[in-house]
Amino acid sequence: MKPNAVILLSGGLDSTTCLAIAKKQGYTLNTITINYGQHHNFELQSAKKIIKAFNIKNHRLIDLNLAQFGGSALTDQIAVPKDRHESDMKDIPATYVPARNTVFLSLALAWAETLDAYDIFIGVNALDYSGYPDCRPEYISAFEKMSNLATKASVEGATFQIHTPLIQMTKAEIILTGLKLGIDYSLTSSCYDPNKNGIPCGHCDACFLRLKGFKEAQKIDPLTYLNK
Amino acid sequence: MKPNAVILLSGGLDSTTCLAIAKKQGYTLNTITINYGQHHNFELQSAKKIIKAFNIKNHRLIDLNLAQFGGSALTDQIAVPKDRHESDMKDIPATYVPARNTVFLSLALAWAETLDAYDIFIGVNALDYSGYPDCRPEYISAFEKMSNLATKASVEGATFQIHTPLIQMTKAEIILTGLKLGIDYSLTSSCYDPNKNGIPCGHCDACFLRLKGFKEAQKIDPLTYLNK
Repeated sequence: MKPNAVILLSGGLDSTTCLAIAKKQGYTLNTITINYGQHHNFELQSAKKIIKAFNIKNHRLIDLNLAQFGGSALTDQIAVPKDRHESDMKDIPATYVPARNTVFLSLALAWAETLDAYDIFIGVNALDYSGYPDCRPEYISAFEKMSNLATKASVEGATFQIHTPLIQMTKAEIILTGLKLGIDYSLTSSCYDPNKNGIPCGHCDACFLRLKGFKEAQKIDPLTYLNK
Repeated sequence: MKPNAVILLSGGLDSTTCLAIAKKQGYTLNTITINYGQHHNFELQSAKKIIKAFNIKNHRLIDLNLAQFGGSALTDQIAVPKDRHESDMKDIPATYVPARNTVFLSLALAWAETLDAYDIFIGVNALDYSGYPDCRPEYISAFEKMSNLATKASVEGATFQIHTPLIQMTKAEIILTGLKLGIDYSLTSSCYDPNKNGIPCGHCDACFLRLKGFKEAQKIDPLTYLNK
């Protein structure tokens, strides 16, 4: 039997590619999606389509309202920054959600332990990214160390591993990898500020990085944008 | 102005004592309680009473259904162990909830960052306890290290500290400390398996440790038990 893995799936380009990589590596796929009060909850519909396309048998959609804490353009009444220059991308923007990946990885760890799954996949990227601290390799390594002291499974000898196959890839490399693995990127949603029909804005960091990635990969993004 | 602290409050004896210690240390108190699908959700009523007694101005009650993952006597259809011998307490019992403190501390961290609070209090104890891995000093230290790589605040120079004032205290010492600080322990609830009116069973690990603590402290537990 294939070993179980838990994959964090937002519905975006990165997490979908991460899922395809876990599949290629031969894991039994268990996906977890968090409805955290994000304004761009259109991505949850994308996640649903991806789960169907990958024929995932075991999925959890977790409701956890991080908007109760506020402090982010993605959950609070703060404008999503638009048309930032690439040179600004090293500043952490208003779309940073406090401790989001820590909360998400904790939930993945909790579920993983009940599944005897010691492999957790997260599609973080520290190259073509918005400078979020919880996407960096040193953070992931610290989370992994903590996991291996946190659980009954680890006391009993298991070792959790946090897999970040995209962490040192450019967005173009991620896209080319995903296309080779047969991903239909029309199912995915990246925009932080889509319109009510889920049409991406073309101007937020997430759209910028996605469009740049497709351009550099010399591939066509199958999504239609409001304005790019 | 007093610095902000975030205190994890379950409604139990330990977290209430931890709250009283944070108050004594001069912090502005911000409490967070998690409704995680615990069968013994009577403790949420206790938390409410404690928040009132401490006149807490800023509180969050977070709904997060960990019962969706299962794997614990506290959330799943698994019996709560009763009348365990103290010598068994080093085995991790069925009441262990996978990665619970990791999830709880992550939520506290997320809220703390939005409050500019760099002090997080959790009432874990590694002496008179049930052997849970996520109560041990080495785990707390790893979580703290991870926190200081996870957040925008830490990138900008802040240092989060996870305070565990009870970690090396016996239950009797915790009770004596709390009584000196004026805690009314009749407001608190420790039992894993109370009846529908919240009356504690007197036989689970939590009741056992609480009763032993009061006995060793030579104090009277103000709670009435079903059977002890």
